[in-house]
Formats: sequence, structure tokens, C-alpha cells
Amino acid sequence: MYDQQMGARAAENLRLVREGKPLVHNITNYVVMNYSANALLACGASPVMAHALDEVEEMVSLAGALVLNIGTLSPPWIEAMIKAGKRANALQVPVILDPVGAGATTLRTDSAKRIIEEISIQVIRGNASEVLSLSREKPGPVTKGVDSIHTVDQVVERSVALAGELEVVLAVTGAIDLITDGEQIFRVMNGHEIMSRVTGTGCTATAIIGAFLAVDPQPLHAATTGLSYFGLAGEKAAALSFGPGTFQIALLDALYTMKEEELRAGARIQI
Amino acid sequence: MYDQQMGARAAENLRLVREGKPLVHNITNYVVMNYSANALLACGASPVMAHALDEVEEMVSLAGALVLNIGTLSPPWIEAMIKAGKRANALQVPVILDPVGAGATTLRTDSAKRIIEEISIQVIRGNASEVLSLSREKPGPVTKGVDSIHTVDQVVERSVALAGELEVVLAVTGAIDLITDGEQIFRVMNGHEIMSRVTGTGCTATAIIGAFLAVDPQPLHAATTGLSYFGLAGEKAAALSFGPGTFQIALLDALYTMKEEELRAGARIQI
Amino acid sequence: MYDQQMGARAAENLRLVREGKPLVHNITNYVVMNYSANALLACGASPVMAHALDEVEEMVSLAGALVLNIGTLSPPWIEAMIKAGKRANALQVPVILDPVGAGATTLRTDSAKRIIEEISIQVIRGNASEVLSLSREKPGPVTKGVDSIHTVDQVVERSVALAGELEVVLAVTGAIDLITDGEQIFRVMNGHEIMSRVTGTGCTATAIIGAFLAVDPQPLHAATTGLSYFGLAGEKAAALSFGPGTFQIALLDALYTMKEEELRAGARIQI
Repeated sequence: MYDQQMGARAAENLRLVREGKPLVHNITNYVVMNYSANALLACGASPVMAHALDEVEEMVSLAGALVLNIGTLSPPWIEAMIKAGKRANALQVPVILDPVGAGATTLRTDSAKRIIEEISIQVIRGNASEVLSLSREKPGPVTKGVDSIHTVDQVVERSVALAGELEVVLAVTGAIDLITDGEQIFRVMNGHEIMSRVTGTGCTATAIIGAFLAVDPQPLHAATTGLSYFGLAGEKAAALSFGPGTFQIALLDALYTMKEEELRAGARIQI
Repeated sequence: MYDQQMGARAAENLRLVREGKPLVHNITNYVVMNYSANALLACGASPVMAHALDEVEEMVSLAGALVLNIGTLSPPWIEAMIKAGKRANALQVPVILDPVGAGATTLRTDSAKRIIEEISIQVIRGNASEVLSLSREKPGPVTKGVDSIHTVDQVVERSVALAGELEVVLAVTGAIDLITDGEQIFRVMNGHEIMSRVTGTGCTATAIIGAFLAVDPQPLHAATTGLSYFGLAGEKAAALSFGPGTFQIALLDALYTMKEEELRAGARIQI
Repeated sequence: MYDQQMGARAAENLRLVREGKPLVHNITNYVVMNYSANALLACGASPVMAHALDEVEEMVSLAGALVLNIGTLSPPWIEAMIKAGKRANALQVPVILDPVGAGATTLRTDSAKRIIEEISIQVIRGNASEVLSLSREKPGPVTKGVDSIHTVDQVVERSVALAGELEVVLAVTGAIDLITDGEQIFRVMNGHEIMSRVTGTGCTATAIIGAFLAVDPQPLHAATTGLSYFGLAGEKAAALSFGPGTFQIALLDALYTMKEEELRAGARIQI
């Protein structure tokens, strides 16, 4: 029922992250900086947070991946993202964008679109409202916070079309995660609903995909396997927790203690 | 001994927050952004953090309440608070101010006073030193960090006078919380002393009141019931914890798992 | 085998922090603000975070110590650090610097060096790569994130020389912590390897030393005893945890519950 080859690839990517400890450069929001850094450390990567215009180019040149997240954006940060992104492109460092709250305000939608215009992005991860607001064709629906308001079928159809249009891998997360490059569609069934009651789980999934991008040259596979690993850790953590507080702590433990064999067997990925 | 009507109102407000999932727009400090967001999610609300001058008006127009917190303030953030607050006023979105550290530095005291001058605020929550430093009449005492240095009687007398002067609900938190609009006085006995050993519990109480303001048209009642809910969750968490680390995690769980009936019975509110 | 006098001093310093609750003014990075504040509260100190140019001088005048940390630096923050530092010097408030990522980018290395030039610093805490990048003599090696790449012998020799050159106490943390003023060398054996899998443990160690500086007039002793206390709390926490999530929470509990007698007996300090 689940694709065994992708399960094996998830396990292999996790092994490669732990072995290589890739530096993941994050220009991200204030809310999730700490949690994302801890999640990256728990999975074996080396996080760094740096946003100053004067250093982002130098920092990204040391990195295996660049994570851009507009969650608490302001104009100087957007400039830093563009600058870092261009340097990443020149050095072929993969870039992932998390368009937090795109669709909710003009600044966020426009900033995300500008980043996509100016930088070659390998993966965009967001919920359906955020991702679909990035279409050039029609204005996205109003995002309420970071919740989604589309039917599953609409999301699939429009995501595939948008991925083709933007020439990027879209990772649309929700009860079931949808990952597409405009041609292939992967679905990840791992995860637990309590993840939506902890702030920044989406942003943290983005950071984890960043780590996987540093070791897997196929963005479609990096995004799919990263989400499967993160989701499976969420399942394990949910089984051990009493609410969103204990859950978020157990999630860090689960990312850290996850055996590669366990991920291979527990990955629920469909093609 | 405790007011049963207010206990029922606390339970009803919690139900309304969980049902309506109001968007709570926070312009708050870096230290507590993550914890406040998690507490709001745990109580059922939808938090968003946004401070860019270019988007605060648009964001607050989607919100059920606006939370302003000067904990790590700098001039651009104050401008954003003023701008968001004016828009909130125009749209009748309730506003709550947390004057963190007012009384400690001129910048904080003056900024808090300026916000109060320029925006119609519904609730101000702080400790006694912070709140009483906002009086126009006499300079507040020096605040040491966020501790309080008044006697209980002084606090009551001066708080009631100040609430009347400013035409605002003051929520003065401490061992016993005092909530007054200058006429009525409510006291909340819920809470636990270990809350003072976790950073941002005051700020988080402010955010929770923000969620309650989104569903209760009476600021006096919203502040009182929000503090009772937060304090009761603190009592439950303290019983399950071994120190401030496990406490802060258990508190998020307790906010999430609190039954409405449990809050009705456990609210310790006096009029 | 371990120095009993220093164990006694560690216990005494912890007692003095808990008794005096010194205000520790932090100008630090976004990633660790929350955790550092919680650690300071857990150890008994009163943390405050303030970075606005308009208030840092006033805030530091209330403080028992000033903590400067360049982890997510940008130019305005550096200016605030310099301004606060000069005021601290004038008032004889001790200053500790954490040169996070110095050696990794020019901005970080240059900023750290500029701070050292313009301010009298009592303690610098970092890993070997960060600390040794501060030498005026030769360019430091490239720092990968915050990891270290020197042999133990190199670190000792160069650290002692650098401490003498800069006339500062260097606290070089790693598997074994090395603390030197260029003449004496202290080693702290407390700690646990899982500390490297939680973000900001180094920064938090710096903040704890800040609290100890507020009560101990000897920077060499403050740094050594602060690291011993923090490391011993880490050992206790590691024994109770299942991964980096539960560890970071247990560490706050351990800082809080540590008995002074326990620290006296458990401090593993060598001269």
C-alpha cells in the first residue's frame, strides 16, 4: 500500500543528515527560531540563524541548504532573503520557502511572490491557502491565520497546476500532505492532528525539509521524505503526550531517537 | 465564597473561544512570542504575530482582538502598535496592552503612556509597579525587572483611581489578581507562585485575556475570567511538575485539556 | 581530585544569586531569549531583555551584570551593545560577551572584536573556534556553525595566550570547559554531551555566568563556578530525559531544584 522505495529513501536521507550534519541557514520568523533550531539539532543537522544584510551571503556559502520563512517579515528581512537566495542560487545551494500567512495580507503575498520571481526556489511548503495564494492567475482566498479553506480535490488540481507554472516542488501540508512537481504527485499520510495545536510545526517541517534538501539532490524526494520523517515523529510523540505542551517536547525526542529502520518501516508515502 | 456567576461566565467564554477560534493579533516581545502563540493555540484561539508597518492594519482587520506588549520594544515597533491600535479602534476590535517594564526605563514608561494617549485601550494588564507607573499624576516607582513593590492596600486604592482616570480596565496581577474598571473590583485567587519563575507568564496571561476579549463584550469580565482560567491551569500544572521547566509544559497541556465544567467549578473569583 | 574550595565557592555563589536575585540585562539573540530568561529565573536571578538604543543605558544602570551575545546580530544591535557596555563600564557593572559564530562570518568576527576594543569585558565565553577567532594575530579558522575544530592542546595554549593578550577571562566550553585569565587555568568537568543537541545551551551558560558575575567580584571564579553549576544541572537533567526535548525541560528544573550542598559536592573543578 505504501511505497517501499520511498520509505527506504527516507531512512537513507535521515542517515545522510546524521552523518553529514549539514549546516542549514535559516532566515526565519521570531516565533519559531528556537523550536526550528532544536528540531534541526534533534534530526542531526547544524542550524544557523542569520539575517543581517552584511553577512547572509557569507553564511549561505557555508550552508547545505537555505530556509526562507516570512512568518514575521519586515522589509529589511525580505531584502536579506533575496540577497541570501541569490547567492544560494549562484552556489547551487538548495532553497526552500515557507510563505507563512501568504494570502492573509498584501505584504506577505507580495513578498512571497517577489521571492519566487527573483530567486530560483526548489521547494515551497505551506498549507493550501498559503501555497495557492501564490498563483499569478487569480487572487488567493483570504487566509485566516494559517488555516486552510479548500476541498481536497481543489487543492490537488490547483497545486499540480501551480507547481508546473512556477517550476517548483510544492509541499502542501494538511491532514494528508501533498507533494508535487507538477507531474508526479506524492502523498504522505504520516502525522497527527495535535501538530496543528503547536505553533510552528509547519515552519519546523520546512526546516527539516531544508536539512533533507542538503543531502538529497531530488527536491521532490527530499520534501516527501522529510515530511514523512517529521510526521512519523509526530505520531510517536502524540502517543506519549498529554497535550500540546508535552507533545512539542516529545516531538524533539522522537526526531532524535527515530531509528532509520523505524522510519523505513513507518513511512506512509503513496505515489 | 466565590462568585458562581463569574465561574459560569469563565466556562462560557472558554467555550466561545474554542468554538470561534478567534484570530488574536499580537505585536509582542521576542521573548514570549513562541510561548504566547502556543498558549493561545492551547486555549483554542488562532494566534498571529505581525509587526511590519506595512501589514499591521490589514492583519488587525482580520482579528478578534489586538494584543500590544512592549517587552522588547524599539521605536519601529511602537509605531506599528500605534498604527494597528488606531485601525483596531476604527473597527471596534478590542485592544489589550501589556506595559512590560513600565516604570523601569523612560522609554518604556513613555511608550506605554503614548499608546494609552493615542489609542482607546480596553484592558491593561501588568504587575503593580508597571500599572501604577502609568499614572499621569506622579512618577511611578522604579521597577526592578517586573517585580512589584507596593502594599496590597496601596495597589487597590491607586489602581481603582487610575482605572477611572484612564477609563480602562486594569488587571493587576500578583499573588491575588485585582481587576477593576474604577468602579467594580474583582479579585481572582487562582494561580500558583511558580508562575513567577517562568518567563512570560504575565505576557501570556495578557494574550489569553486577548482571546477572551474577542468573545466577551465586557472587558472587565473578559479580563477576570481569562485570568481565572489561566490561573486555574497554573494550579493544575503546578501539581504535575517538578520545577519551572516541567511546569511551563504542563501549563500548555492544562490550558488545552481544561474542561469547561472544571473551570466553572474551579474559578475562584470574588467581587 | 577536584578542588573543594571552588566547589564551596560555587555553592556560595548560587546562594548569593538566589538571595540577591540580581537583575541580569541581556542583549542577546532571538533564538535563545526565551530559554536564557527561563534559565536565569530558574537559577534565581531576574532577567531583563532590552536592546533599544534609547533605553539600554538606563536599563544597565539597574543591573548587576550585562550579557552581550551576537548570535543573531545586526548593526543596530551592535550599537546598542556598545552603548550599554560603555555605560556598564562607567558604573562598574561586569560584562560578559558571547561571540556566537565568530570566525564564521566577517560581520561576526569584526563585531566581536570591535566590542572587545571599545568595552572592557570581564569574561568571554564561547567554543574554541569562536574564542580563538578573536585573536588579533592571525585569522581564526572557519567556524562551521558553532562547532569546534581544534585539538585540546592547541586550545589550551592559544587560549591562555589570548586571555593574556586581551586581558580578559576566557571561558572556552566543550567536553571539558577551560577557564583562564592568562595565568591561572581552571577546568570544569561537569556537563553532558546531549547539551550540544539543544540550541542555546552555550548562550545560556553565558547568561548563568552573568548572574554569577553579579555576586562574585572575581570573573575567573564567577565563570568557573557558573559553568560547574550549569554543567552539573545538565548531568542531572540528562539522567532524567529521553532526548533533547525532555532534556531541555529537565535542565530548567535541575537549575531550580539544585541544592547548594549538592553543588558543593558535585562540582568537578580542577586547577
